[in-house]
Amino acid sequence: METLKETEKTKLGRARNLAVFDREMLYQVFDEALLINIGFAMDGQPFVLPTLGWRVGNKLYTHGNMKGRMMEYLINGAPCCVTATLIDGMVLGRSAFNHSTNYRSAMVFGSMKLVDDPAEKEEVLRLFVEHIAPGRAEQARPPSVGELKATAVLSIEIEEASVKVRKGPPNTKECDRNRDVWAGEMVMRQVVGPMVADELVPEGMVVPDYSAAWGERWES
Amino acid sequence: METLKETEKTKLGRARNLAVFDREMLYQVFDEALLINIGFAMDGQPFVLPTLGWRVGNKLYTHGNMKGRMMEYLINGAPCCVTATLIDGMVLGRSAFNHSTNYRSAMVFGSMKLVDDPAEKEEVLRLFVEHIAPGRAEQARPPSVGELKATAVLSIEIEEASVKVRKGPPNTKECDRNRDVWAGEMVMRQVVGPMVADELVPEGMVVPDYSAAWGERWES
Repeated sequence: METLKETEKTKLGRARNLAVFDREMLYQVFDEALLINIGFAMDGQPFVLPTLGWRVGNKLYTHGNMKGRMMEYLINGAPCCVTATLIDGMVLGRSAFNHSTNYRSAMVFGSMKLVDDPAEKEEVLRLFVEHIAPGRAEQARPPSVGELKATAVLSIEIEEASVKVRKGPPNTKECDRNRDVWAGEMVMRQVVGPMVADELVPEGMVVPDYSAAWGERWES
Repeated sequence: METLKETEKTKLGRARNLAVFDREMLYQVFDEALLINIGFAMDGQPFVLPTLGWRVGNKLYTHGNMKGRMMEYLINGAPCCVTATLIDGMVLGRSAFNHSTNYRSAMVFGSMKLVDDPAEKEEVLRLFVEHIAPGRAEQARPPSVGELKATAVLSIEIEEASVKVRKGPPNTKECDRNRDVWAGEMVMRQVVGPMVADELVPEGMVVPDYSAAWGERWES
């Protein structure tokens, strides 16, 4: 797979030593995060819009209300920056200074395009539902013409992009090696928990299990 | 507690009906998320910088390398937008269209200030360590003068801010009420997992438990 190219924009920022140019890793971050943050500036005022995003091939998709002001602005080609970040753990060092975070973070620069091909729009929305809950696109009612019309789907090509990863134990300075304090990583992750039925679900209906798409399952 | 005021900037965006003006809720989102996204524009190019942020009183703090280019830009008073978002669950509707997300999302507008008072700097960094791992500020070596100097601490006042919350079951259209499909919420959350000691930790050392600060504990 083609590696990501470094550009003036993607090489900016802290901790350059953590940058990796692995497209597969970048895909993984977006696939796992689901939550994306779209940064753009309107009349010089920066906004960060948190929303869901999903990847199909080398494109990242997002959706929203066709009438949303921010959507409209993005559709009109505003330059933007899309990030997704996964916190994998807190790194607990022997000194306060050597505390850190294990994370995977992806960033894409470019601008959004409105998906106006009805077939592509329908298909990527179907894949979105499947990404969240595999099998569900068959179970739920598909969107009507009116519903599709009310939904704006936007895409951005993953071209100018970067991904940063920190993993592993804390750094320890020479003077701290024998310090009497536990050090290592406190693992963190996002998990799916219980399925809470709404009040229209009849008693005895089988509860679907979509947790396979989300790694480990957590029970309260 | 004083409620948040609506302004031109904070009233922008989708789903106005989900906006709440509850400062306590906004505090909660930042306290729980830890991950913040700082949006700003450099020469018209938007960037979203994911980093950790923590709240003390009515200020939100973040830190980084004093020599970082983005840090320098923010310190110089660039307008920015700071968001934090918690995904509480996927809302599984009876139709694809009525799928949604339960979330809490906070947004602050303003600009960052460098914390140059050494006492404030030291104290808020200590509170940061305590926020991640209660008790740890006493256990780990405190920062040296040089380490403090190398660390930039920035703050932003929580003045122009908004918070949005979606919770509860999916919406169901009249035509879908009797559809034979399970509907409800797939709960999601961020949890702490195992503590992974680094290789300098001597055998038999007691492993600290900081999970109380993180709600439920997850075990793989």
